[in-house]
Amino acid sequence: MLSTAQDSLVFKNISDEVLLHGTCYNNLRVLCKKIGNRISGSPQAAKAVEWGQKAMQDAGADKVWLMPADVPRWVRGYERLALRYGNGKFKNVTMLSLGNSVGTDGKLLEAQIIMVNDFDELNALPDEQVKGKIVFFNYRFRQDFVNTFNGYGDAVRYRGFGPVEASKKGAIAVIIRSVSTGEDDVPHTGFTRYVDSIKKIPAVAVGNYTADTLAAACKKGKVFAQIESKCKLMPDLVRSYNVIGEIKGAEYPDEIIVVGGHLDSWDVGEGASDDGAGCVQSIEVIRTLKALGIRPKRTIRAVLFMNEENGLKGGIAYADSAKANNEKHILAVETDAGGFTPRGIGLEMGPDQRAQILPFRKLFMPYNVYDFEHDEGGADISPLEKQHVPMAGLRPDSQRYFDIHHTNNDVFEAVNHRELKLGAVALTQFVYLMSEYGLR
Amino acid sequence: MLSTAQDSLVFKNISDEVLLHGTCYNNLRVLCKKIGNRISGSPQAAKAVEWGQKAMQDAGADKVWLMPADVPRWVRGYERLALRYGNGKFKNVTMLSLGNSVGTDGKLLEAQIIMVNDFDELNALPDEQVKGKIVFFNYRFRQDFVNTFNGYGDAVRYRGFGPVEASKKGAIAVIIRSVSTGEDDVPHTGFTRYVDSIKKIPAVAVGNYTADTLAAACKKGKVFAQIESKCKLMPDLVRSYNVIGEIKGAEYPDEIIVVGGHLDSWDVGEGASDDGAGCVQSIEVIRTLKALGIRPKRTIRAVLFMNEENGLKGGIAYADSAKANNEKHILAVETDAGGFTPRGIGLEMGPDQRAQILPFRKLFMPYNVYDFEHDEGGADISPLEKQHVPMAGLRPDSQRYFDIHHTNNDVFEAVNHRELKLGAVALTQFVYLMSEYGLR
Repeated sequence: MLSTAQDSLVFKNISDEVLLHGTCYNNLRVLCKKIGNRISGSPQAAKAVEWGQKAMQDAGADKVWLMPADVPRWVRGYERLALRYGNGKFKNVTMLSLGNSVGTDGKLLEAQIIMVNDFDELNALPDEQVKGKIVFFNYRFRQDFVNTFNGYGDAVRYRGFGPVEASKKGAIAVIIRSVSTGEDDVPHTGFTRYVDSIKKIPAVAVGNYTADTLAAACKKGKVFAQIESKCKLMPDLVRSYNVIGEIKGAEYPDEIIVVGGHLDSWDVGEGASDDGAGCVQSIEVIRTLKALGIRPKRTIRAVLFMNEENGLKGGIAYADSAKANNEKHILAVETDAGGFTPRGIGLEMGPDQRAQILPFRKLFMPYNVYDFEHDEGGADISPLEKQHVPMAGLRPDSQRYFDIHHTNNDVFEAVNHRELKLGAVALTQFVYLMSEYGLR
Repeated sequence: MLSTAQDSLVFKNISDEVLLHGTCYNNLRVLCKKIGNRISGSPQAAKAVEWGQKAMQDAGADKVWLMPADVPRWVRGYERLALRYGNGKFKNVTMLSLGNSVGTDGKLLEAQIIMVNDFDELNALPDEQVKGKIVFFNYRFRQDFVNTFNGYGDAVRYRGFGPVEASKKGAIAVIIRSVSTGEDDVPHTGFTRYVDSIKKIPAVAVGNYTADTLAAACKKGKVFAQIESKCKLMPDLVRSYNVIGEIKGAEYPDEIIVVGGHLDSWDVGEGASDDGAGCVQSIEVIRTLKALGIRPKRTIRAVLFMNEENGLKGGIAYADSAKANNEKHILAVETDAGGFTPRGIGLEMGPDQRAQILPFRKLFMPYNVYDFEHDEGGADISPLEKQHVPMAGLRPDSQRYFDIHHTNNDVFEAVNHRELKLGAVALTQFVYLMSEYGLR
């Protein structure tokens, strides 16, 4: 299984096609500017499904279809956080409720803030010191990790589990320092997880500057907060869809390679980097192969998954369908780390399979894609893991992602046209190669 | 000459120090926002010299000094380009005169445009078809190169030599499609080169959208242009300076490693990526080594060179001084490719010296710096080449650079704090290593 001069030539053709004629950047512009952010179950998410179906058809897929997935609908209502330092007045600060957060039931919560830097500090406090208070998790995103996803994995615990842990000790609400690399005051939303047996309390995020001020004030003396929020999870699921476009394999049509990102986003910004970029790149895989007249040996499916952010219902529906139809997926590839300059392709598979891929690395070097050493799949494809499907994930440069992730700054303008396209190049090259050589 | 676990530890300390306590991003903010753009010989350039001297002292350099360099001063005056399509009216378009361009001597030039796609097309035209006309060089930046510096090297010929070549055939002015990867209408300035024996004619640049419209119109029928410009090169040189900060080597103080970027910029935007980034990274090398208490074995000099953009007088002055003082430079390193995420370090030296550096590559891999395969030095250090000094250059990712290079969009906000810092990390690690092991 050695790569040939022919592969190298096809790689160059793919690169030229995307860099010179790629439509992914314009597709992203339309998705971001005509539809905007699109949380699961929203009217915008429904429009995005229509858009995706049309874009997949325009790309020339042999077959395009929608796969139903019933998704939760969380709605951000009026929300407000005000802080009072010392004997001053309450002043509103820039904030965002965490996704999935409950509201305040029409009430205004007002209480003293108790600051903790991490879970250890919280757990060391006697319950009576926490009871009735608002816990401020002042955990900083570690800037010393070179790959920011390591910092994210570390800090996101406080967003995910902070409310439950604080509630266990009697807190009435939670403020978290945003899970953010930003040197700014931009709040980051994102999923927080409740446990049915623990009282659900409202959770909001503040940007790093507000967190700095708040932390300094908490060290000096008493700080009080007011929280009002009409955020709520709607009682019923909403019918939504994955969008799927397929090119049928010429030699082994029953062997399927899936490549995808997620179509839903949080309800702020434009969902450009998370994950409009992955959607338009996945569509570009189809368009590029078709434009070059490449008939892949194996079946290639581009999937725009629904509901990655708060439920994964699309990914689960896809895996359930694959199982029910007894489909043979030889590889699942995700692109959900932003449309930044590509660095590598992560692999999450056994050593035997990894050994089949690594010899191809040199083909990617002229495209500055060199890093195949890390484990990486993706959330949307993770439900396929039970079926032992090998996983891979595009690894773009990670430096800018957590400045804008889940914020109002996740907009089209923060994506560079060439970086986005080069990500699509690497993805198309990888998927093409795997369709030619297979994976045993 | 093998790297040790100790080197790996120092590399990590350098990374932590810059990522957690680096001052380069704040230094860049001050340079961009308090001083702004700073073309050679301007009052802003003089302020930048003062700023640089202070920043180098704050970084803890053992010794800081200014090295005189007399620089040309080019001044952009009132400038205007208007286009008339068919029987329409003249309408002003967004434009920038090229740097070093002559003006129109108080006159308004008005003439028909003759479009050529490249020099071959120009040279194929009979002189009488060009005489008295305004030549529009419609050469597109090639987007198919993965590294945009290759596209720049290809397209910049038209900016550099277009006016001379058009003037040879009797043209009265030149319009060029900007040397730009941008999908926008942003004009890019930059140096154009005259020859004394050929009449100097004014040269202006338009953004890609205006160039697209103009090209389409030229294909359809006659287009006329009006150009007015008060741009001029001042008759006298202006006294300016390189800013130098040094840490004296502990074991081999006479062996010098120089690391630098350039302090001057074009007179648009804020000179953030070109090359404020390189300046603050070079200062960060000094600060980081000092903060970590590292006494390098060899002498390390950070240099903020003056006048890279339109004369290279600072680089020449430095090389002249090195020669006059019989200094032994074992390595010169430049950072002048933007404060983007680092990809590698280019080497411009003999195979024997290259062979001494390549075994260290693995130390850089955890920092995503892997590419040591390319030749790269830098303009400011190039005058040292005559003294056979080995050269190296930081290679950041190139995708975004030529969207903003030499434009009003080259501002602080287009630089990411973590990308800038990681460039400084790689630069400090490399300079540290070379100071420990030397280069024979």
